[in-house]
Amino acid sequence: MSDQFPGYKEKALQLLKQGKAEIGDLVQVTKNGETYEGILIPRTEYGDKKHVVIKLRSGYNIGIRITSTTRIEKIGVGIKPTFAAPPLPEQKSDLPEISIISTGGTIASRVDYRTGGVRPALSASDLYSVVPELSEIARIDAEILFSLFSENIRPEHWVKIAKTATRVIENGVAGVVIAHGTDTLGYTAAALSFALQNLSVPVVMVASQRSADRPSSDAATNLIGAVKAAARAPFAEVVVAMHETISDQTIVFHRGTKVRKCHTSRRGTFQSVNASPLGKIDNGEFSMLVKKFDRRDPSRKLILKPNFDEKVALVKFYPGLDPQLIDWYVDNDYKGIVLEGTGLGHVGNYCSSAIKNAIRNDVVVAMTSQCIWGRVNMNVYNQGRDLLALGVIPLEDMVPETALVKLMWIFGQTKNIDEAKTLLSTNIANEMSPRTLHE
Amino acid sequence: MSDQFPGYKEKALQLLKQGKAEIGDLVQVTKNGETYEGILIPRTEYGDKKHVVIKLRSGYNIGIRITSTTRIEKIGVGIKPTFAAPPLPEQKSDLPEISIISTGGTIASRVDYRTGGVRPALSASDLYSVVPELSEIARIDAEILFSLFSENIRPEHWVKIAKTATRVIENGVAGVVIAHGTDTLGYTAAALSFALQNLSVPVVMVASQRSADRPSSDAATNLIGAVKAAARAPFAEVVVAMHETISDQTIVFHRGTKVRKCHTSRRGTFQSVNASPLGKIDNGEFSMLVKKFDRRDPSRKLILKPNFDEKVALVKFYPGLDPQLIDWYVDNDYKGIVLEGTGLGHVGNYCSSAIKNAIRNDVVVAMTSQCIWGRVNMNVYNQGRDLLALGVIPLEDMVPETALVKLMWIFGQTKNIDEAKTLLSTNIANEMSPRTLHE
Repeated sequence: MSDQFPGYKEKALQLLKQGKAEIGDLVQVTKNGETYEGILIPRTEYGDKKHVVIKLRSGYNIGIRITSTTRIEKIGVGIKPTFAAPPLPEQKSDLPEISIISTGGTIASRVDYRTGGVRPALSASDLYSVVPELSEIARIDAEILFSLFSENIRPEHWVKIAKTATRVIENGVAGVVIAHGTDTLGYTAAALSFALQNLSVPVVMVASQRSADRPSSDAATNLIGAVKAAARAPFAEVVVAMHETISDQTIVFHRGTKVRKCHTSRRGTFQSVNASPLGKIDNGEFSMLVKKFDRRDPSRKLILKPNFDEKVALVKFYPGLDPQLIDWYVDNDYKGIVLEGTGLGHVGNYCSSAIKNAIRNDVVVAMTSQCIWGRVNMNVYNQGRDLLALGVIPLEDMVPETALVKLMWIFGQTKNIDEAKTLLSTNIANEMSPRTLHE
Repeated sequence: MSDQFPGYKEKALQLLKQGKAEIGDLVQVTKNGETYEGILIPRTEYGDKKHVVIKLRSGYNIGIRITSTTRIEKIGVGIKPTFAAPPLPEQKSDLPEISIISTGGTIASRVDYRTGGVRPALSASDLYSVVPELSEIARIDAEILFSLFSENIRPEHWVKIAKTATRVIENGVAGVVIAHGTDTLGYTAAALSFALQNLSVPVVMVASQRSADRPSSDAATNLIGAVKAAARAPFAEVVVAMHETISDQTIVFHRGTKVRKCHTSRRGTFQSVNASPLGKIDNGEFSMLVKKFDRRDPSRKLILKPNFDEKVALVKFYPGLDPQLIDWYVDNDYKGIVLEGTGLGHVGNYCSSAIKNAIRNDVVVAMTSQCIWGRVNMNVYNQGRDLLALGVIPLEDMVPETALVKLMWIFGQTKNIDEAKTLLSTNIANEMSPRTLHE
């Protein structure tokens, strides 16, 4: 890697030096008789030695593989790219109006031209301008709420996102798109599912696994899918819009309480766990995948319940877990503990007395499974029955991460422990599916 | 449910009372002109109101659905089933000799006829006797090491299992089968993969999702697959033998360091994460699924490294995690912390100073991903680079649970922190796959 040519190595670097082309220069790349013109941009993640990447006049980036016939020539002065938003295209007044709220993440990020690293820098209107198709789908109002990578998003941010979504919905938009990093997107989607009740329009969270500056970016297709759903989908729920697989062809909409990031790098990383996705766009065609859902209904009045209490812990059990960890949470005034047990909902019997002590101290203790898929059933084995007898609450087929968020949300609504337990066992936002015969 | 007829309800219960048949009686069930004879056994998990279950003379259990034409008649005196092992069938001296070591779990459990609950009670020789096919595959030596549900298995038990396996291997068996509960099977499989090095024969862990007393049990097919592999497979590694899907047709062998329980109740719950299974038996036919593996070689001398240090923690990051939790581990003299970070290997920046403090106090801090699938890559984003700069060790595509076990094992081998870090980044038992171009 070179400081002057971030991300470029070996053959690619050599060719750029020969052509006297710097980052930001207008270059002409010739290969096998074909010619490409564009602005030379830095490689980001996984930069390799075999490609150069240029931004075409259309705004799209392409990677060109270097062969023995490839030549690179600088044909324009070094116009350094800026992050200033270009003017918005003409808005078509007969289209539905939607709001994009940007919180950061890869979908809202670009390469930092000074360091070659990826930084949260792109505004929501930038997003709009690099995807010209959006102006054919909706009139777009855009705002930056944060510029945070999502591992830094905490319950206090969930509150702000929920309040901002409420404000734009009360202003009468046809739908809301929330751009967010992928890392904790599942947690925020669950949080908004509990905080935004009785929705009149869709709230579509969207993200990307690869930034818009990369040739294989999923940012544009995910964003187009999210905007289409916000503008026209028949449902009024909190969903996550992402690639179904590695293919650009299908965008699926996962329910906010059932979605989980299941791969570190693939574009189809998000999966609906123990549930079907709500709907999808396949080759541009929108379809619903479930029969029961909350329908879009402008007459509905949104109920905002934005508070969360962070004194709730997620404890993953493993062989040799020190039960004093549970005591530590009790000593630190935690109100709830969600266990990620093994199998059907177990923890080692050496943890029982610590759990008993927690419950005696009015800590709500609930059980999910680290298997992730399937349903807890604590009636099968002695250890499960013993935990039930102690007062541990089984959380059916709830994703552990959603269970954590739900219990944080519950203690944001009530301090009454019996009410908290009742809410925890009540299905509020499709977080628990009814038991079916053939599962 | 009835105390006298455990597991039976409504229609089934009524019919049993009419027929004056008690648990343990020889009964005749007539339905649509067909007749079934067997011992009436209690229903266990998920007992429903529509079936009765009888044990046929062959030893297999069948469930018979009750219709309006079903009649039940007691035809024999109530012979209460006992847990005494029947005599072993004649051993064929030309077959390979294998050892079954039973640690407990559903595969080694039966219904407790007094309570109707499932209890660890079946001895390894019981296992043998209820699956007559085993006598055609191998000469079997069997012993009960523990009768534990696997959520109660801890590092101290891993030590005993490793030592017992070593003893029988040194006695010259052709392979070892270890019966174990499914709940923490993945952890124990990883532990044995590190503890038993330079294996000469296969060590095949086996389990079942449904006990042998249930009509849909996977116990017999898994056990047959495990015994076949122990007797004849070409590999000499620690593997887990389980159903590939819900079908009885295919048993797959997962590498001990890559396997994870991924569904609470399905028979095909175990998956190889970020790897292919090592081999499979499909319709009775054995085949390898990878090219590189450790081959069976009786001339090899097993190296036993059975020690583990429990002062290692697995910490799953989530929004709002209290970084004081990390301080608590440091204050309690923990030697290592495996983080289950988000995405490519991140935690919120509000945890950075606690991590820095842990590393300054000679705690080894390593990173895996809660995505489970995929590889950590901490060079892509600022937060990842910052954590690397603090000294956090990225664990590539290692399963978080395996990473925890590996670090416990490492501190059982050395107290030297630099040596520990080197071992952690070294591939010892296929726990890390090399980076590939197209993943």
